[in-house]
Amino acid sequence: MNKYISILAATVVSTALLASCSQKKTTDPNIGVITEPTSATTNILGHEYPKINPDLSVTHRVSAPEAQSVVLDICDKKYPMTKADDGLWEVTTDPGLVPGFHYYFLVVDGVRISDPNSQLFYGCGLMASGIEIPEVGVDYYLQRDVPRGEVRFQRYWSDLTQSWRTCYVYTPAEYDSKPDKRYPVLYLQHGAGEDETGWSNQGRMDIIMDNLIADKEAVPMIVVMDRGYATLAEPDEAANKGGMFNFTAFDRVMTQEIVPMIDAKYRTIADRDHRAISGLSMGGFQAWNIGLAHKDMFAWVGGFSGSGRPGNPENFPATLNDEMKLLYVSIGTDEPTNMYSGIYEFHKMLEDNGVKHIYYESPGTSHEWLTWRRSLHQFAPMLFK
Amino acid sequence: MNKYISILAATVVSTALLASCSQKKTTDPNIGVITEPTSATTNILGHEYPKINPDLSVTHRVSAPEAQSVVLDICDKKYPMTKADDGLWEVTTDPGLVPGFHYYFLVVDGVRISDPNSQLFYGCGLMASGIEIPEVGVDYYLQRDVPRGEVRFQRYWSDLTQSWRTCYVYTPAEYDSKPDKRYPVLYLQHGAGEDETGWSNQGRMDIIMDNLIADKEAVPMIVVMDRGYATLAEPDEAANKGGMFNFTAFDRVMTQEIVPMIDAKYRTIADRDHRAISGLSMGGFQAWNIGLAHKDMFAWVGGFSGSGRPGNPENFPATLNDEMKLLYVSIGTDEPTNMYSGIYEFHKMLEDNGVKHIYYESPGTSHEWLTWRRSLHQFAPMLFK
Repeated sequence: MNKYISILAATVVSTALLASCSQKKTTDPNIGVITEPTSATTNILGHEYPKINPDLSVTHRVSAPEAQSVVLDICDKKYPMTKADDGLWEVTTDPGLVPGFHYYFLVVDGVRISDPNSQLFYGCGLMASGIEIPEVGVDYYLQRDVPRGEVRFQRYWSDLTQSWRTCYVYTPAEYDSKPDKRYPVLYLQHGAGEDETGWSNQGRMDIIMDNLIADKEAVPMIVVMDRGYATLAEPDEAANKGGMFNFTAFDRVMTQEIVPMIDAKYRTIADRDHRAISGLSMGGFQAWNIGLAHKDMFAWVGGFSGSGRPGNPENFPATLNDEMKLLYVSIGTDEPTNMYSGIYEFHKMLEDNGVKHIYYESPGTSHEWLTWRRSLHQFAPMLFK
Repeated sequence: MNKYISILAATVVSTALLASCSQKKTTDPNIGVITEPTSATTNILGHEYPKINPDLSVTHRVSAPEAQSVVLDICDKKYPMTKADDGLWEVTTDPGLVPGFHYYFLVVDGVRISDPNSQLFYGCGLMASGIEIPEVGVDYYLQRDVPRGEVRFQRYWSDLTQSWRTCYVYTPAEYDSKPDKRYPVLYLQHGAGEDETGWSNQGRMDIIMDNLIADKEAVPMIVVMDRGYATLAEPDEAANKGGMFNFTAFDRVMTQEIVPMIDAKYRTIADRDHRAISGLSMGGFQAWNIGLAHKDMFAWVGGFSGSGRPGNPENFPATLNDEMKLLYVSIGTDEPTNMYSGIYEFHKMLEDNGVKHIYYESPGTSHEWLTWRRSLHQFAPMLFK
């Protein structure tokens, strides 16, 4: 399989625009360099461990004097921890952990728990420990001294599900100071086992967007992050299959409730040319499904480690070239084979059908947040231009 | 000790106003009534346990097939759990748990962990499990069909601490639709071991404020919830004592950085008559300390289960009656004796000094969120009138 490391040119956006989408290096060579064991930024305030070492191994230490066994579970590998006389268990991982954000767990006498030293992040269906590994010379997802937008927590009533739902809405820094200006909207979905908090907590989307907008690489836009699960109060036959992951129900909530709610509450430009939808993993499938099923609502569609399914090429005709402003697919080169091949085959199918799109492979990353941060950093500047 | 169950009249606000501050009952007698074992609303989506029983006991169940012992730690009591053949550990608490929000933990083979069934809340210095026990006939902190404000996540640079800090800002529902209107501001602090997420997650402050404003009991206001910890980058002698709980440092961050940042970014009425400060527990001490040390900035001061210290009565002269618009202190009747007596003595000292203030005792609650929800629900309507 011939892996694509760079962006293919089969695209509706200009190559000049693409130049700005590569992973930008900073001019400061010290950014992200670890010179001595350093407490992770994802630790609870004041907690020393886990510590990141200069070789990008991580040393974990946890107190469990009465436990019989403690195992660290990180990056698809289990590390048995060793107990010292003081009841502290410790282990150091292999060197060279991939930069970016990783979920991890401790297994105490067979019970998988979150590390009490760590801030927790909703992923894997629960509040999971997470660690941020620094990336050398990269600052697009680091806080810089630029005007900062906001992430606004919303509660809203959903008639379709007869429940209160929540979403997060990013507004660009200038939003409050330009009360007569209206903005395009990107709907950005999380993955399975995650929720509407993922993109701002694990994904640092607000920092990425603030930096892109400050550098004039992306236009100021609103970004809506909703909960990608829905169960209809009165399910019809189509909506009745699949429970929590029934995209039919979420499609209806998105198009009949979320979009109108956002258009009513925010100063949006409420037409298809100013509305994009994307997401990661499950959220990428949702974005492609919902986006292409509602071309009257969305003109820009993306999926990060998630896309349409390659099995039905007739659903992706070349007429999409005239209908859509942008189609985007990405995948990490180190993702599990079935995930990689599914996205790659979808991309090849689009090529075979003559459907213009952007295809990006994130080098050296798996099904993880660095793949998705890179994808957002590349996708957002292409929008609404 | 003669416990005060109602509000004392030694106050600068009118008794007519006080009438609206009692704990409002709903007209729907079914609100909060549990008729059969019911999954807690604080559970992770789709998790059945813990379940709340009609007698307000709670049944917990957790899978730990290899563990030797599992203990539930809730509401200051430890309940050993019993293992069934399928590896599920279960226990039911005493009946009659106090309504509102409670932190709890599981202790697995001596290791205190958060329950993987629970949403987690930053408290007790870590991400803690929490459970919401329904309260019969009370809906001031339940979501109703009223216009909803937003809670906005802010990141800002702090020169004093040389760090990025975060805060949450509640804006009332009308804020975006009235771009020429300016608003008063309440600064509302969390307790020790909690952080700036506490008031919106555990405290439901946005729901309380939305309901109060919709019912015209409180005036529309901005509420700022910042992180009550600060370590100065260049500490002077006064700021060098006490580390994370050094209020001197936080005082400087609050008055020199947070308030100016909020006044610059939001449409505030930037004077003392339109600025209040309050908080719970540690945050109540901070509010009284900072508020009275900066009477040029704050005219309304409150503390919920936290106040000034009674040891220095000369610091609280009757001249405060002319200087301050409102002084407020509250405590739960079932708080630990040292907490109760500290607040009660402070209140008596104010009385002895002839300092007008509101003193409220929350019946039947301990050092817990129901005390603080009730206090906010009573305090907010008194402000800016």
